[in-house]
Amino acid sequence: MLKKVLIANRGEIAVRIIRACAELGIRSVAIYTEPDRYGLHVKRADESYSLGDDPLAGYLDPQRIVNLAKQVGCDAIHPGYGFLSENARFAELCEHQGITFVGPKSSVIARMGDKTQARKSMQAAGVPVTPGSDGNLDNLEDALAVAEEIGYPVMLKATSGGGGRGIRRCDSANELKSHYPRVISEATKAFGSAEVFLEKCIVNPRHIEAQVLADSQGNVIHLFERDCSIQRRNQKLIEIAPSPQITPEQRNYIGELAIRAAKAVGYENAGTVEFLVTGNQVYFMEMNTRVQVEHTITEQITGVDIVQEQLRIASGRPLRYEQQDIRHQGYAIQFRINAEDPKNNFLPSFGRVTHYFAPGGPGVRVDTAIFTGYDIPPYYDSTCLKLIVWALNWEDAIARGQRALDDMRLHGIRTTGHYYQQILAHPDFQKGQFNTSFVPDHPELLDYSVKRHPSEIALVLASAIAAHAGW
Amino acid sequence: MLKKVLIANRGEIAVRIIRACAELGIRSVAIYTEPDRYGLHVKRADESYSLGDDPLAGYLDPQRIVNLAKQVGCDAIHPGYGFLSENARFAELCEHQGITFVGPKSSVIARMGDKTQARKSMQAAGVPVTPGSDGNLDNLEDALAVAEEIGYPVMLKATSGGGGRGIRRCDSANELKSHYPRVISEATKAFGSAEVFLEKCIVNPRHIEAQVLADSQGNVIHLFERDCSIQRRNQKLIEIAPSPQITPEQRNYIGELAIRAAKAVGYENAGTVEFLVTGNQVYFMEMNTRVQVEHTITEQITGVDIVQEQLRIASGRPLRYEQQDIRHQGYAIQFRINAEDPKNNFLPSFGRVTHYFAPGGPGVRVDTAIFTGYDIPPYYDSTCLKLIVWALNWEDAIARGQRALDDMRLHGIRTTGHYYQQILAHPDFQKGQFNTSFVPDHPELLDYSVKRHPSEIALVLASAIAAHAGW
Repeated sequence: MLKKVLIANRGEIAVRIIRACAELGIRSVAIYTEPDRYGLHVKRADESYSLGDDPLAGYLDPQRIVNLAKQVGCDAIHPGYGFLSENARFAELCEHQGITFVGPKSSVIARMGDKTQARKSMQAAGVPVTPGSDGNLDNLEDALAVAEEIGYPVMLKATSGGGGRGIRRCDSANELKSHYPRVISEATKAFGSAEVFLEKCIVNPRHIEAQVLADSQGNVIHLFERDCSIQRRNQKLIEIAPSPQITPEQRNYIGELAIRAAKAVGYENAGTVEFLVTGNQVYFMEMNTRVQVEHTITEQITGVDIVQEQLRIASGRPLRYEQQDIRHQGYAIQFRINAEDPKNNFLPSFGRVTHYFAPGGPGVRVDTAIFTGYDIPPYYDSTCLKLIVWALNWEDAIARGQRALDDMRLHGIRTTGHYYQQILAHPDFQKGQFNTSFVPDHPELLDYSVKRHPSEIALVLASAIAAHAGW
Repeated sequence: MLKKVLIANRGEIAVRIIRACAELGIRSVAIYTEPDRYGLHVKRADESYSLGDDPLAGYLDPQRIVNLAKQVGCDAIHPGYGFLSENARFAELCEHQGITFVGPKSSVIARMGDKTQARKSMQAAGVPVTPGSDGNLDNLEDALAVAEEIGYPVMLKATSGGGGRGIRRCDSANELKSHYPRVISEATKAFGSAEVFLEKCIVNPRHIEAQVLADSQGNVIHLFERDCSIQRRNQKLIEIAPSPQITPEQRNYIGELAIRAAKAVGYENAGTVEFLVTGNQVYFMEMNTRVQVEHTITEQITGVDIVQEQLRIASGRPLRYEQQDIRHQGYAIQFRINAEDPKNNFLPSFGRVTHYFAPGGPGVRVDTAIFTGYDIPPYYDSTCLKLIVWALNWEDAIARGQRALDDMRLHGIRTTGHYYQQILAHPDFQKGQFNTSFVPDHPELLDYSVKRHPSEIALVLASAIAAHAGW
């Protein structure tokens, strides 16, 4: 088993990985930049090291992180999600320096990170992909010709993009003409590559993704699927496992496709194969070669600790489970509680958490790095808390989500919590019928007012005063 | 379904019941006495009413509580555990006043509350009881004769006792002679009855109890067992489900005995049948006719929400599950985090919680009514937090317990948390081999020192200063 792991991340996912290390008896090493000096991951790790004043540079510096890992005697680095987690050069650097990268081989990250390469690999393996360009586009004329052939609407995508960025929908040749230079410009800036490709736009699909685990002995299993259709601008808000809107046959089919995809590229460690589903058709979208924000709900329905399994696999151990050992029970829902104001166009709302009370009781899990008195820094992802609920059936899971959102107290900042109550109360959501257009189709759900129990107003004021008093 | 439920309790169990009501769409009514004015159950209930200045009198006044329930339009009362939960007259008063008592009929409470009556009912139903006196003892001579017949050691017990109180072990005739008047005196004071009886003392048994659910249509199921052998002076400290030290055959046998016991007395609602187990022998000890502190671990391994089921049953609904629907998966452990100082003979340690951080992440559940800034009043039960962990197997559950206890922050008072780390680290506990003598047999586990991360000392001091500053 690995002995000492550097966690090249921050916030709740760093805390999540520290917890898995603690449970496996692995020593954990945190890194931080100065705005994170009082972060929970720094408090909870066995050791922690500053990587300078710049809020981001330290978390994004492969060489410095690998040097630190070697210097303090780590045998592995866990990249979490975001930051360097899908940076093939970072993984490669680890490989060259004799540090175990908790994830797949750098060549696999590179292959799946290049979206046209990934499409080709999947086509070769018999995993259905959406109709689209045969590799990258040469120029606008090429794009227009391909779009004409597959039919509008089409999606223009950055080849090196991912996580919902570098994507534009084009409904006509005119739109394609105007978006083409923009996406190239965005892709160059954001991903350092001007390459783009085209895919047929699947209108109002469901976003269904399958979790896989693959060991270094070549064993691959899937842990069923997650339904991440509740999105805003390609960013997931609420995730559900299993999907309440697919049949057991579709479930098995999607799981098998995911295993086929992982095997085709020699995948190792935890990964997610994302699909677009419309009616009975399932299309490969992309593979995320890292642990995902929403891995939690799969843990809730299967009992498998995905981060522990990542560390075991990286230690060279074979999987502890065969496919038939994996069962799913009940429904889990994850709410990404973001420090944003939904009523003000989801404007970020960073600042001091003047009072925080964690919801608890049956079927409630919280993954967060916030605490009363914590200052949420403005430099990072806005998700400040993941609230996960579980119950034996879909209706009970919704009721539990409503109760847990109500039970939570998070004062000092605005969050997306109240907005999620609106979504939970919607009849289509309650029937389990929704696709990726649910959020844009229901702007009226933003029309809510926040009710507060009178007895709490004094507490809110007192906390706010105390928190700003500077002790 | 019930519409509005008065919760005749306080603290974490009141919060637990409020949460179940919220998930079922039932309006909740809290009661409190003045020391509890700022209690979490008051904040979280839909309505709350003061029952006066005396810390205890209001919670123990059947007539006043029933009057209030009627006055504010409640159709039911949930008694929780402790207080009036096993008071047959309280249940009877509810019956007479047309208020649904969330529990069994008053006659069943009375029958099971009288330990010699309960023994007789069980014997008649073929549930094995320990050898003992045929009903209550007439006098000391009677006691000595029975003890001679069944053999020392014997347990002298108050007939109306329960919850580990009103019990003395007697190893010889001399001890029986000296304990006899004491137990009678204690029983008279504590339970208002001088009746006592004798049972053979089962030496170093395991405490195994089975959870049952019974609806008003006569259906009874069991939810497997809990192992509560880790006790100190008959008070449970750590509870485990399922027991790591019984066979599947014993599991089924104990479950069937519990169903037989419940059916024999016409039991309705949730209840627990407690057994003493030694080798392959299983003896009925008592039945608790209410929800138990440790119901949580059964919820974790079965997914069934026991408090919701109580409310459904009280609404007249049939059980949603048949026996074959009930499965158990993994292991759950509950730690009763008590406001006590183990290193000072478990002296209560009440006062202000200057800083509280709820442990979280996978497989962790917290049931508590404390929060940062809360003053734990000295008048009530010392259990201030229930930490529950779950994992797919026993070893992982222990590792998770160690991690979660480490993750929790509860400053300002002393608790039993560090002591539980000592128990978890013991090889016999880790092998799942322990009985009710584990705690007294291992006084050396109290010899620990509390380590604190240097970065936290400043926080502890700052929190303490702020908490006592009086805002």
